[in-house]
Amino acid sequence: MTIEYDGTNLNGWQIQARNQRTVQGEITKAAQKLLNEKVKLIGSGRTDSGVHALGQVANFQTKSLFPILEIKKALNALLPKDIRVIKIAEVPLNFHAQYNAKRKTYRYSLFLREVACPFRHKYSLHYTKKINLKRMREEAKALIGKKDFRSFMASDPSLGTKQKEKNPIRVIYRIDIKKTKDLLQIDIEANGFLYKMVRNIVGTLLEIGTKKLEPGIMKKILAKKNRNYAGETAKPKGLTLLEVNY
Amino acid sequence: MTIEYDGTNLNGWQIQARNQRTVQGEITKAAQKLLNEKVKLIGSGRTDSGVHALGQVANFQTKSLFPILEIKKALNALLPKDIRVIKIAEVPLNFHAQYNAKRKTYRYSLFLREVACPFRHKYSLHYTKKINLKRMREEAKALIGKKDFRSFMASDPSLGTKQKEKNPIRVIYRIDIKKTKDLLQIDIEANGFLYKMVRNIVGTLLEIGTKKLEPGIMKKILAKKNRNYAGETAKPKGLTLLEVNY
Repeated sequence: MTIEYDGTNLNGWQIQARNQRTVQGEITKAAQKLLNEKVKLIGSGRTDSGVHALGQVANFQTKSLFPILEIKKALNALLPKDIRVIKIAEVPLNFHAQYNAKRKTYRYSLFLREVACPFRHKYSLHYTKKINLKRMREEAKALIGKKDFRSFMASDPSLGTKQKEKNPIRVIYRIDIKKTKDLLQIDIEANGFLYKMVRNIVGTLLEIGTKKLEPGIMKKILAKKNRNYAGETAKPKGLTLLEVNY
Repeated sequence: MTIEYDGTNLNGWQIQARNQRTVQGEITKAAQKLLNEKVKLIGSGRTDSGVHALGQVANFQTKSLFPILEIKKALNALLPKDIRVIKIAEVPLNFHAQYNAKRKTYRYSLFLREVACPFRHKYSLHYTKKINLKRMREEAKALIGKKDFRSFMASDPSLGTKQKEKNPIRVIYRIDIKKTKDLLQIDIEANGFLYKMVRNIVGTLLEIGTKKLEPGIMKKILAKKNRNYAGETAKPKGLTLLEVNY
């Protein structure tokens, strides 16, 4: 399934114990109601509370003989309006939305006009500081390729003591920084992302764009392999999971 | 002042007696708090509950000597996030946002994809019937020019017995029907609009596009000068006041 969601009023992807609305929770509930069996929904990865998606991918196994397009229709009828299954397809039984994901693209959006916008404020960071795009683009180049991204990884409370075992190597294929009128979009494509890695990279790029951090700093931050050297974590509301490739 | 608002959680433009959130009410409250005087806010016209604006215009008189740009800043700081004053300027004392308005442009947006979108469902009508754009455009031509638009006017409860005195003649300058991917936008520019006129025109155009109404019908509906002959009123959430010209 390919899934869109407006993360504003959702507590992220991962199902929560109590009465928290989550994407995984809402889809699991809808699927179980529809199929009348226990459903284990596997997502391509978690997104944090407030983060949006235009192309999240998830899969589940079912014994149901319902036609696949009927399942999509019925799920959408059961789901709240801020979550929609936009595509659905049958896949081999061994398909795994997380383990088989090859690439992911995230977009971070900033709204640059002096006055915020009633229509965009939930989907972009309102940012009015003067930014030097050339410098941001120049520094972003240091992140391209196969690197140890520990400096941009937040400690993940759900991992506990397993934290240190996690492989911090990722490959970033592309960082595009585009500006059209009042909108700045930072697209990052990688083979995968560490916890809060996109938001930490964006926060650092913004501190570079406003000249708080000097040229050449990105290379140095990477070399430190320590989160303390990177910039602040950018707010979740500007982040959208655009695409997952398999 | 030029004003943007997301009408989703607002009870339209016009100030209401009770505790209803309205655009006029919220801006009046903010301005009175800021300027410490009674403020009479004049809008270019009312918009209904649920209708949005990217270019509503309003004016008020004040004895304040605050610099105009400081007033804008302070108003935005006091206003809720779904209303923003995006431009402000001093005007001659005899300026009247309603009486001096020469042209207005409204946009009606429809989202045509089979599955609705979590990000657009508040700002467009989800519409999945097959529509014939050529036929819509052809029929729309009958509306261009100086006409009696009584067939597209809803009775306005706030006018009471004055209803019949109201001049039903308006001039439509332009109706543009544009489709890009899953989005259909109908822009209507006129010297003014009767109560619910845009939504009644859009509803009729959709019934023409789906071939519920036969070719040539628009001319006939106009000639009837009777609301009963036009199509259904399209939902408010798809409507946005784009621009008011003076």
